Amino acid sequence: MLTLYIGNKNYSSWSMRPWVLMKQLQIPFTETMVRFDSFEGQSAFKQAIAGVNPAGKVPVLVDEGFAVWDTLAIVEYLAERFADRGVWPQEPQARARARSVCAEMHSGFSALRSNCPMNVEASLPEVGARVWREQAGVRADVERIVSMWSGLLQQWGGPMLFGRFSAADAYFAPVCLRLKTYALPVPAEIAAYVEQVLALPGVKAWNDEALKEHDFIPFDEPYRTAR
Amino acid sequence: MLTLYIGNKNYSSWSMRPWVLMKQLQIPFTETMVRFDSFEGQSAFKQAIAGVNPAGKVPVLVDEGFAVWDTLAIVEYLAERFADRGVWPQEPQARARARSVCAEMHSGFSALRSNCPMNVEASLPEVGARVWREQAGVRADVERIVSMWSGLLQQWGGPMLFGRFSAADAYFAPVCLRLKTYALPVPAEIAAYVEQVLALPGVKAWNDEALKEHDFIPFDEPYRTAR
Ligand SMILES: N[C@@H](CCC(=O)N[C@@H](CS)C(=O)NCC(=O)O)C(=O)O
Ligand SMILES: N[C@@H](CCC(=O)N[C@@H](CS)C(=O)NCC(=O)O)C(=O)O
Repeated sequence: MLTLYIGNKNYSSWSMRPWVLMKQLQIPFTETMVRFDSFEGQSAFKQAIAGVNPAGKVPVLVDEGFAVWDTLAIVEYLAERFADRGVWPQEPQARARARSVCAEMHSGFSALRSNCPMNVEASLPEVGARVWREQAGVRADVERIVSMWSGLLQQWGGPMLFGRFSAADAYFAPVCLRLKTYALPVPAEIAAYVEQVLALPGVKAWNDEALKEHDFIPFDEPYRTAR
Repeated sequence: MLTLYIGNKNYSSWSMRPWVLMKQLQIPFTETMVRFDSFEGQSAFKQAIAGVNPAGKVPVLVDEGFAVWDTLAIVEYLAERFADRGVWPQEPQARARARSVCAEMHSGFSALRSNCPMNVEASLPEVGARVWREQAGVRADVERIVSMWSGLLQQWGGPMLFGRFSAADAYFAPVCLRLKTYALPVPAEIAAYVEQVLALPGVKAWNDEALKEHDFIPFDEPYRTAR
């Protein structure tokens, strides 16, 4: 049996990726929420996760006591363990390209990530407009995302990045949420892809559960003082 | 035929990973060096690499015109294309664990990476001693690396992290170089692993070629004014 350790659904963009992937592909799992308090050494979060993941982060997938940490390693583990579910695109070059863009997300887009932290419940268009004006790095990140997604949607014909849903869409689902929360300007075909992703049952389920949470986590809330 | 686009061997830790992996596993390839000048938008580096990788970085593996960028995607591509070479450990849990630690490296260890940039030719023990005293983040990164490597060497019996050489050792080869260049303090069994990695033919070949370069790249040299 698989257990996925995740953080708060409202805030934890990394946790969202494998959760959405498994829901969409109907891979059964149970979940354990490790609530964020702080990421300092002695926080309750760090103490709770230390027993599961020596890297001290969520998400972690535990399969019969064996821990797989880091989203990309989890995706590869699922791709091997559920080889018929289409975790990655089937065609080898599409699969390689999907891995390139996921790896790019994994270590990049730092301006977007730090200036526009994921916050499912919030609506912050004024913040987004200011960030857009002031942060060239955010504009560059969004420009790269727009060109990446347009190219893939055109090449593979949509509606998802590689035709049918794959790990790549799960990987960019938190970016779709950020574009919406901060109302960042994108071309129409990109806005349409964002809506398609937000309408996926797995994404809707995550968002619904995020809205039911009531924690306000100050270090994930640079722009508000309460929910 | 495979072509690997890389940066300067003296400085480019990401380029080193797939290069060492392919050399060690005797996967034939040609290489194209895209010299670092700066990473600003209009640099010669950025202009040269833009035609190969829309993410604007090295390394990139080009296979008959098809580009695979990002080290992790390149590793997975090689694992599929050369399935009998042992890119990843063969045992499924070892393979999953190798992916977890590589993914951890891919998006983590930022204190070590920024305070101790890779520099094959340099010897900077005094800088290392100062960084060690002043930067708690570097101490925490090295502590995590030491505990990760000790655990793996013990579990899999050495001499490499998962017994025989795999992508995980290629992935941490630049960390071995940093530990040496900055003379960071590590336990004896870790120092022994570092020496084993530095003695690998693929690593020696990279280092020898790095020493033959004469470029001094100021943005990669926070601690020196000349080579
Ligand atoms: N590269 C990791 C990133 C995971 C990550 O940063 N998770 C955050 C929560 S969204 C975390 O646990 N942070 C704790 C910390 O940084 O100390 C992955 O892809 O799984
Ligand atoms: N996540 C990438 C990182 C590659 C990377 O950052 N490469 C550096 C050279 S070592 C680069 O090309 N930097 C250019 C830039 O950041 O603009 C990978 O694993 O391939």
